[in-house]
Amino acid sequence: MNRPSGRAADQLREIRITRHYTKHAEGSVLVEFGDTKVICTVSVEAGVPRFLKGKGQGWLTAEYGMLPRATGDRTQREASRGKQGGRTLEIQRLIGRSLRAAVDLTKLGENTLYIDCDVIQADGGTRTASVTGAYVALVDALAVLKKRGLKGNPLKQMVAAVSVGIYQNTPVLDLDYLEDSTAETDLNVIMTDAGGFIEVQGTAEGAPFQPEEFNEMLALAQKGIRDLFELQKAALAD
Amino acid sequence: MNRPSGRAADQLREIRITRHYTKHAEGSVLVEFGDTKVICTVSVEAGVPRFLKGKGQGWLTAEYGMLPRATGDRTQREASRGKQGGRTLEIQRLIGRSLRAAVDLTKLGENTLYIDCDVIQADGGTRTASVTGAYVALVDALAVLKKRGLKGNPLKQMVAAVSVGIYQNTPVLDLDYLEDSTAETDLNVIMTDAGGFIEVQGTAEGAPFQPEEFNEMLALAQKGIRDLFELQKAALAD
Amino acid sequence: MNRPSGRAADQLREIRITRHYTKHAEGSVLVEFGDTKVICTVSVEAGVPRFLKGKGQGWLTAEYGMLPRATGDRTQREASRGKQGGRTLEIQRLIGRSLRAAVDLTKLGENTLYIDCDVIQADGGTRTASVTGAYVALVDALAVLKKRGLKGNPLKQMVAAVSVGIYQNTPVLDLDYLEDSTAETDLNVIMTDAGGFIEVQGTAEGAPFQPEEFNEMLALAQKGIRDLFELQKAALAD
Amino acid sequence: MNRPSGRAADQLREIRITRHYTKHAEGSVLVEFGDTKVICTVSVEAGVPRFLKGKGQGWLTAEYGMLPRATGDRTQREASRGKQGGRTLEIQRLIGRSLRAAVDLTKLGENTLYIDCDVIQADGGTRTASVTGAYVALVDALAVLKKRGLKGNPLKQMVAAVSVGIYQNTPVLDLDYLEDSTAETDLNVIMTDAGGFIEVQGTAEGAPFQPEEFNEMLALAQKGIRDLFELQKAALAD
Amino acid sequence: MNRPSGRAADQLREIRITRHYTKHAEGSVLVEFGDTKVICTVSVEAGVPRFLKGKGQGWLTAEYGMLPRATGDRTQREASRGKQGGRTLEIQRLIGRSLRAAVDLTKLGENTLYIDCDVIQADGGTRTASVTGAYVALVDALAVLKKRGLKGNPLKQMVAAVSVGIYQNTPVLDLDYLEDSTAETDLNVIMTDAGGFIEVQGTAEGAPFQPEEFNEMLALAQKGIRDLFELQKAALAD
Amino acid sequence: MNRPSGRAADQLREIRITRHYTKHAEGSVLVEFGDTKVICTVSVEAGVPRFLKGKGQGWLTAEYGMLPRATGDRTQREASRGKQGGRTLEIQRLIGRSLRAAVDLTKLGENTLYIDCDVIQADGGTRTASVTGAYVALVDALAVLKKRGLKGNPLKQMVAAVSVGIYQNTPVLDLDYLEDSTAETDLNVIMTDAGGFIEVQGTAEGAPFQPEEFNEMLALAQKGIRDLFELQKAALAD
Repeated sequence: MNRPSGRAADQLREIRITRHYTKHAEGSVLVEFGDTKVICTVSVEAGVPRFLKGKGQGWLTAEYGMLPRATGDRTQREASRGKQGGRTLEIQRLIGRSLRAAVDLTKLGENTLYIDCDVIQADGGTRTASVTGAYVALVDALAVLKKRGLKGNPLKQMVAAVSVGIYQNTPVLDLDYLEDSTAETDLNVIMTDAGGFIEVQGTAEGAPFQPEEFNEMLALAQKGIRDLFELQKAALAD
Repeated sequence: MNRPSGRAADQLREIRITRHYTKHAEGSVLVEFGDTKVICTVSVEAGVPRFLKGKGQGWLTAEYGMLPRATGDRTQREASRGKQGGRTLEIQRLIGRSLRAAVDLTKLGENTLYIDCDVIQADGGTRTASVTGAYVALVDALAVLKKRGLKGNPLKQMVAAVSVGIYQNTPVLDLDYLEDSTAETDLNVIMTDAGGFIEVQGTAEGAPFQPEEFNEMLALAQKGIRDLFELQKAALAD
Repeated sequence: MNRPSGRAADQLREIRITRHYTKHAEGSVLVEFGDTKVICTVSVEAGVPRFLKGKGQGWLTAEYGMLPRATGDRTQREASRGKQGGRTLEIQRLIGRSLRAAVDLTKLGENTLYIDCDVIQADGGTRTASVTGAYVALVDALAVLKKRGLKGNPLKQMVAAVSVGIYQNTPVLDLDYLEDSTAETDLNVIMTDAGGFIEVQGTAEGAPFQPEEFNEMLALAQKGIRDLFELQKAALAD
Repeated sequence: MNRPSGRAADQLREIRITRHYTKHAEGSVLVEFGDTKVICTVSVEAGVPRFLKGKGQGWLTAEYGMLPRATGDRTQREASRGKQGGRTLEIQRLIGRSLRAAVDLTKLGENTLYIDCDVIQADGGTRTASVTGAYVALVDALAVLKKRGLKGNPLKQMVAAVSVGIYQNTPVLDLDYLEDSTAETDLNVIMTDAGGFIEVQGTAEGAPFQPEEFNEMLALAQKGIRDLFELQKAALAD
Repeated sequence: MNRPSGRAADQLREIRITRHYTKHAEGSVLVEFGDTKVICTVSVEAGVPRFLKGKGQGWLTAEYGMLPRATGDRTQREASRGKQGGRTLEIQRLIGRSLRAAVDLTKLGENTLYIDCDVIQADGGTRTASVTGAYVALVDALAVLKKRGLKGNPLKQMVAAVSVGIYQNTPVLDLDYLEDSTAETDLNVIMTDAGGFIEVQGTAEGAPFQPEEFNEMLALAQKGIRDLFELQKAALAD
Repeated sequence: MNRPSGRAADQLREIRITRHYTKHAEGSVLVEFGDTKVICTVSVEAGVPRFLKGKGQGWLTAEYGMLPRATGDRTQREASRGKQGGRTLEIQRLIGRSLRAAVDLTKLGENTLYIDCDVIQADGGTRTASVTGAYVALVDALAVLKKRGLKGNPLKQMVAAVSVGIYQNTPVLDLDYLEDSTAETDLNVIMTDAGGFIEVQGTAEGAPFQPEEFNEMLALAQKGIRDLFELQKAALAD
């Protein structure tokens, strides 16, 4: 098997995490998984949604978007279509659940963290890049909250995400668009640094996948996420 | 561990599959997983979406809804809110992908199959009941198409779905609402009768789940889905 | 004149009223007028719309929907179209006005009753079946409210509805779809058990109707509604 | 009984019908029922809706609106709310059905007539004024079509509409807002000049109405509509 | 150069300003610039938008619409399309900004003035007619507020608007539709009676305009607006 | 007068124009006016809107958006609100008109150019940066079209845009957010390299502006736009 990029089966694309990418947000990261580029910002707003009012805890929610020409063909702008598509809603719900796993909402006060992940260039794996980048922006935003007087540390654990798939009968890590568009199976895995799974979402695009393939893919994902935790730590250490 | 329903950990709820439940649709099934009740219809319409026109193949798509009072508290009607929520879109996309795995679209002619799954009473597991019931309605609809002159057999394989989860530290099969609302983890599994996975969607609602728990849950799901295939066959044999 | 169903001109279809049809709602009825089948639920929620706040009274409102394949051809799901159509709004406004005539809103406390009528199979007369079935569900819901401590009895009078029309130059009662789709005139009548009219809505689909035809149709409707009151009483007596 | 306006029970308000009110439309009428003022235009467009294509016939459809401050309190603009309300849809469907009764659609060619009724000042009875005025605009528009070369005469019969109600226990004709807002019953009647009914829509706003009251109201409506036909004829004779 | 209307280059169309045009609004004006006819109402409502609550000041906002057949070809009704178009939003924002320049919001109390400009016949220059007419309606509405007890005078200055353009290489004042649709440049100017500009919006529809042309157009606009102030004063003096 | 940035009154911010910023679009530019950063892409699609079909010419249209946290406080995402706001529509219409002035649509063939301007960081002047950057992306996209076989050169002239305003009684060029939010007047000017105006949009945010101030501002804008043309040329020369 030869990956179009020449990568080894268990090799991530080149990952770059640029902190403080824009100036207004409490946390702002440009995350690049090869040619996939996502701006992840974290905004802090006083107040919580109605269902949490008066409970003394915070909330975290996420939104996802793509610039119309982030993709090979232009995609219609969701704002002008008048609604977010099913894929967008699915991804932003996933990002929100994943990042909520990283924070102890009871230590946030009645504040809401908005995660915004906007893809400026897409080349496969935008949702996993989003989760991985948003985690770093979240750490920066929590540091800002601490400077503004928040007591305690809401950060519970690290979170990162990667995709794996079966490409030409071989499990491979971190699919780019060329691989993704022909892969038989697409599996997105989100884990904590303690080794637990937050989300495992596998879809057979073509032939169903077998239990043993599934286990191989999970092992690849675990390897890739360990690498991503190192890259997140390095970015945060700067 | 005692399940609220008194079921064994690997025991499905009582499953009932009633064919020809309503009279207009080509396929129409009431599927019951215990107190979860879903009407699954399959409608055949001439024509395909624009992206498939002229390719000589068919299409299958799904929509999902819940009656406002299918749930313990009344849920706002999506038609009057003016849009389908993220959960709805996520589920109907899942149903569509799953059922497309059961048919060879190239043998449908330029026809579209609409799967409609409408929950009239919800007690946990509505998406897995929907997939399992819709498969039976699909078989009936394809038989109607055959009577109307369709050549060949588009049916490729059986498809069924079940949920598993970690309830009070123990993996259990086919969660009802009481279990689902307190479970640590929720895993939906969709398989073919050849033993392949079509979808595996696991979400840690509370603590992240460990690889070994994941494997236990998958084994339970495989067992449950084998049981469901028997129940589908029995219903279709009537 | 021969009705397609073989019924006499003044004969209702077979009417079935099944109480406690689903388990969550305070009132839940499956009403069947022949092959027309509607699930009517009544939900009680604390609070009233803004225009009634602080007036110490309650409110009752209704929503109506059809499953996409309740009809001979599949109807597009209103939730995915993003709005309720004119016919739907017209019917749900009618149901709401009709059922409000049955209750003394000042005796409800600041509670809102939501009537949901969802057609699972349509064969003509869905709006009149909805009103007739919703009345029974309303009685059950008020009994629940009483058990929860509501003082006084908000129920003022019985309400039922039936359609009449001119089919092949003859006035007939309770049109089914075959009759309805070719009828010259369609008249929906909603009455109280004291013999007063709540709504009379007559529409000439083809030729205008004459005053004498109108009076004949009204007389048929009065007869049919008397029969329906007996059926409602029988159902509630179980 | 004293009507606030001092009118007799069977007396219409002062009716004014001004033809050629605006310059662009094929038919354009300002109709005034006392202080109720509605601009009714009829526009001719080539083409028909999809469900009629290729059948060689025409179509007629209606839309209704109110200027935000046509009413005593300002009503939110439907264009900025993003949807037409239920009352608006109900009225415009009624106007469309009523005016379709006046034309033989098979003689229109594949043209669509758009009736637009826009209330610039509301004082009760806007829907009946709309139907009555739109009929005159329709005659003018058909004359324009004839000049443009349409063969044959699509006009079948005259159509007019009036409201009646029970005000202080007495049936009265053509309610103004003061009467309408306190009336027990509101009945809108639409007839042809041959004496047939097109629509009869009666609603008990307060107490249900009795059969004998209903007959008295119908008789009043018949009288009022005869008067309106004379006024329409006079306007068209100018 | 010959204007289609035979007007001189610096000549306004015939302007008519009819006060108290409809009866419900605090201010209500029909303004006519030749065949362009706009109903301008000003409604007073207690309360202010959220961003101003508790600041002890008022607000003024504007909405604009066109009847579907105000134009040569029928325009789709924005209420049925489900949204206001870009042109509409642009114009109503302009009207709002312009009229806010006429009032001292701090002297309004916590009241909101709604300006509604609805075009019943369009022949070019609807936005400038709207601003000019709405000013007169505003003066009337403020007089009503004063009668209702408002202390102080919120009126700061007069406001009027006119369009100018380059038609057949010559700058002309107050373009009608025939001129507007072929003009090279369209400039809308809004001024105060103290000679200051509130808005200057120039758009080259065809060839870009040169600085000297721009100055000529501005001079024409200043002349036209002086004339409009006289006409507003005359209308208010009646 | 001291500008917050220390700039001279007629001094632009630091302008950076980065071509080929993203990889998929035919033209893709990151334009920076100081801290204002906008991604401008130009996409070429076969086909034209319906009103141009069969005329053998092309079309150019623009859309504008801001990432939610491009601003100091988070702005609600328009895609999730379900509509684009008035400010967005106004700006994208302006960008479209301005860029259409740069191209000869009759030389495009039946192709549509989509200009997408997405603000990733806002600090005042986003619409003028968008126009200026989009021009460069347009040149690149037309070069791609030429390589794909387009005959002739649709490019007619250069286009650039700048804002000017009155800040502390002094006309200043290219306002940043600090200046913009307190400026008395805001004037956006769009010109061609032949010295003609395409758009002039001046708004008095506070006190009306006087004719002489207006002329001073125009002169500043002309100077600034000459500088911008040099910067565009330098970027295109790379």
